[in-house]
Amino acid sequence: MRDLITSHYPDHGVIGEEFDDHNPDAEFCWVLDPIDGTRAFIAGLPMFGTLIGLGYQRRPILGILDQPIMQDRFIGTPRGSSLNGKPIKTRKCSRLDQAIYALTDPRMMATPAQEVVFHRLMRETHLTQFGGNCYAYGMLASGAIDLITENDLKPWDIFALIPIIEGAGGVVTGWAGTPAEKSAAVVACGDPMLYKEVLPLLKGAA
Amino acid sequence: MRDLITSHYPDHGVIGEEFDDHNPDAEFCWVLDPIDGTRAFIAGLPMFGTLIGLGYQRRPILGILDQPIMQDRFIGTPRGSSLNGKPIKTRKCSRLDQAIYALTDPRMMATPAQEVVFHRLMRETHLTQFGGNCYAYGMLASGAIDLITENDLKPWDIFALIPIIEGAGGVVTGWAGTPAEKSAAVVACGDPMLYKEVLPLLKGAA
Repeated sequence: MRDLITSHYPDHGVIGEEFDDHNPDAEFCWVLDPIDGTRAFIAGLPMFGTLIGLGYQRRPILGILDQPIMQDRFIGTPRGSSLNGKPIKTRKCSRLDQAIYALTDPRMMATPAQEVVFHRLMRETHLTQFGGNCYAYGMLASGAIDLITENDLKPWDIFALIPIIEGAGGVVTGWAGTPAEKSAAVVACGDPMLYKEVLPLLKGAA
Repeated sequence: MRDLITSHYPDHGVIGEEFDDHNPDAEFCWVLDPIDGTRAFIAGLPMFGTLIGLGYQRRPILGILDQPIMQDRFIGTPRGSSLNGKPIKTRKCSRLDQAIYALTDPRMMATPAQEVVFHRLMRETHLTQFGGNCYAYGMLASGAIDLITENDLKPWDIFALIPIIEGAGGVVTGWAGTPAEKSAAVVACGDPMLYKEVLPLLKGAA
């Protein structure tokens, strides 16, 4: 991927999990994660994906999530998001007791304050699903999941997912309301009304 | 599925999640779960499957796990197990610190004694993956996962998976060593040596 980018766009920067940053202050900068969900990949579970993000002046403007086993490709741009070429939208779900909640690993909610929020969200949402990794964000963008809270993320874990979620009508930020791409702790909601309800809970645990 | 079975094999019994038992004491009895992992299915995550088991004199002798999104079909018989027609085997992994450990939901380990075992297994294994449902057992049979502990299972959650695991060289029983199909709490290991190490830990928490 790096060779393709640098041969086509020698001025662009590249940031990724596998290698050192290349020209990260460039106006256009790619943010790559060849395998997000490495541990799922190792365990034979298809909840992994290739993440390709493009930033312009440090803000994500294009995101791709590719799942090769299921042959699912999510693309997000400011003009909208798609799954395998078909437009996708988040769904309305403003009530916590109707929300489908996902987080990859409960150990992400590690401090006592975080555990309190985690148990409250598990108790008050309709159901909780673990182990989704990047694919859960795709399912939030396409209207099957309503809420995700995660922690300990690196920029390449979330960068490409931001345009996919935002292009589908969802909201994704840090737990303190900061830009998601600068936050290790991230909250994503399909419905902006649900985001308004959940963010105050997370701010206290950030 | 029920209509097909009763029209072809009127003497056979059928047990399943969706309907009342039909002739459950028959010599041949089918154990069905049309969608195992219903909550994953609802959340758009492909960690669900159709489970079809056949018992002879109450012992499982044939098991099928079908995942329609990934087009994966696991079949287990006393002569061996297969994935999409190719033979599969569990892998050797006798050491806990090299084992890949899976359980669908940490809330399955609910009592204080169970939580102690769960945290010990998370700490001592190589890595832990959540959310796999029935598919994790398929990955154990095909040598990508080494250890699964689950609880609160119904007979149709595990019946079809037993011939798949045993046909691939693995072991699956209740936490007290009882037959898996009669146990709500189940442990599965790819390597019988690992099973011998883990079973005593679980017996104390059963």
